[in-house]
Amino acid sequence: MPAITVNVPLRWADVDSFGHVNNVMYLRLLEEARLVAFNRPMPGGGTLMDTGVLIARSEIDYLHQLLYRPEPLRCRMWTTHIGATSFDLQYAMLDGEECESPVEYAHAETTIVVFDLETGRPRRLREAEVTLLSSWLEDPVEMRGQKARKRRERIAAKAAAAQQ
Amino acid sequence: MPAITVNVPLRWADVDSFGHVNNVMYLRLLEEARLVAFNRPMPGGGTLMDTGVLIARSEIDYLHQLLYRPEPLRCRMWTTHIGATSFDLQYAMLDGEECESPVEYAHAETTIVVFDLETGRPRRLREAEVTLLSSWLEDPVEMRGQKARKRRERIAAKAAAAQQ
Amino acid sequence: MPAITVNVPLRWADVDSFGHVNNVMYLRLLEEARLVAFNRPMPGGGTLMDTGVLIARSEIDYLHQLLYRPEPLRCRMWTTHIGATSFDLQYAMLDGEECESPVEYAHAETTIVVFDLETGRPRRLREAEVTLLSSWLEDPVEMRGQKARKRRERIAAKAAAAQQ
Amino acid sequence: MPAITVNVPLRWADVDSFGHVNNVMYLRLLEEARLVAFNRPMPGGGTLMDTGVLIARSEIDYLHQLLYRPEPLRCRMWTTHIGATSFDLQYAMLDGEECESPVEYAHAETTIVVFDLETGRPRRLREAEVTLLSSWLEDPVEMRGQKARKRRERIAAKAAAAQQ
Repeated sequence: MPAITVNVPLRWADVDSFGHVNNVMYLRLLEEARLVAFNRPMPGGGTLMDTGVLIARSEIDYLHQLLYRPEPLRCRMWTTHIGATSFDLQYAMLDGEECESPVEYAHAETTIVVFDLETGRPRRLREAEVTLLSSWLEDPVEMRGQKARKRRERIAAKAAAAQQ
Repeated sequence: MPAITVNVPLRWADVDSFGHVNNVMYLRLLEEARLVAFNRPMPGGGTLMDTGVLIARSEIDYLHQLLYRPEPLRCRMWTTHIGATSFDLQYAMLDGEECESPVEYAHAETTIVVFDLETGRPRRLREAEVTLLSSWLEDPVEMRGQKARKRRERIAAKAAAAQQ
Repeated sequence: MPAITVNVPLRWADVDSFGHVNNVMYLRLLEEARLVAFNRPMPGGGTLMDTGVLIARSEIDYLHQLLYRPEPLRCRMWTTHIGATSFDLQYAMLDGEECESPVEYAHAETTIVVFDLETGRPRRLREAEVTLLSSWLEDPVEMRGQKARKRRERIAAKAAAAQQ
Repeated sequence: MPAITVNVPLRWADVDSFGHVNNVMYLRLLEEARLVAFNRPMPGGGTLMDTGVLIARSEIDYLHQLLYRPEPLRCRMWTTHIGATSFDLQYAMLDGEECESPVEYAHAETTIVVFDLETGRPRRLREAEVTLLSSWLEDPVEMRGQKARKRRERIAAKAAAAQQ
């Protein structure tokens, strides 16, 4: 299990007027988990955050309603793609390890561009960064949006075939 | 142009320690725009929010850095798919209409499930809702994630072909 | 009426699981109003925010429950004390001017220190700043905490007198 | 030391564009600490939150700039006044107990009204609640606002005396 895992405490204020954790706050929780992970020292020194990163895209599937509780969530993160100047990170937001049958509340994916704060431009990933990110590599879990698009393409293809 | 458009004011507190509007707050701004749109009375009475809606998935492409300014953003929203109990909404977050060449700061898509708060379960879209949502229908704009997946599939197909 | 007035839009997300605007978010709304006011150009150029300000203390009385509504609140602000390096600002958070009998939702007071970002230390208020802040001067409204302390002192004094 | 103490983790997102924890977020942190404390079971059963509480006033002195760090803050809370339907709580926001010379970042006070959610009205504190709140009683620490008012009264009194 090469993924990195971080505990994320909820706040009562994450809950909205529907009584559950607001959908936007899930992204906040993932951000906090990511920043803890990225601020850990890399083997050889430095951190992934040293020169700044930029979020190019985010995608999240809400799998289960989340109520406030004092116990932190567990956020599991793994890389699914490493490019020249960016990488993809997937997240599973789960109950803690003390849970016998942990619920998965959300599954997410972000594309992160490595940035050079001085030049204000993306920069190439360094060797130490690639080594670290490679140690977190796992197969991507398919997102709901991708599944829905495939399903619609299949239906459209069938309809087109039936018409011929 | 059937889409619905809502002005969304920024807050100074949307800005994070990097000095630009935080990536999570873009989702907050989209939520505010969506709720204003969904609370407008439908022809025939009632609103889309009357029985509750649930976000099943969100996807956002960050296109341009956004700095705080007193002028509100303009959020353009249109439906791209209408199902039995859910629909897809796309968003463009733009400069206001007074701008000659408005910048697009983000493009997003959410899948929204229509909910029955009493039974706690998804419910079928009503005719009046389908009529309203249909009047907002437009072609979807392709998201970055989808583009990247297609590109990787093409590369993998080429590599497989070369190996044969 | 020398005070300065700023309209502040609410957000649906300001509401907490009790269904009303969260008490902490009142302070957020006051902050947004203050920043709009402080960013207005001063007669003679520059703004109150040019060199940075620091909040030394905040005090707020919650007078009325506030529900979400699309209409902005009106925040009236006036100075109640001008010192060498700081000043006191009071706020009334009210319904808009279109309201016949506007409700006052909160009354607040903050002490603001004028800061020199370069030296990292408080600095003396400039003449133009004192002129501006003086044009907003009004008598302070007594805060609940002060009233309660006075009442308890009177009771303690009576009790002491009765014992002699 | 009868006060109650709760650890409160910071979030990176509590930091504003000035690079330190935003002044409004201090109140958020105090709220989280208070809710943890109030949700603890009382001797004899139930919690202080069972019927709902309402914040009538908040007052906070910002004593020290606070930067983000992974270590939680420690929030010490004690009651300073117990009335018929309300009580006053003071807070010290400090470094954790592992710190040799813990910094105090803020000192605050809130007046809390005990509420009956069914009738929508304040209710009398119950005996078990008074017992619990009494076990947390300590002398109040004087707030900055009170000190400033006393100082100004002394100055005004001197000026009046000099004029006679």
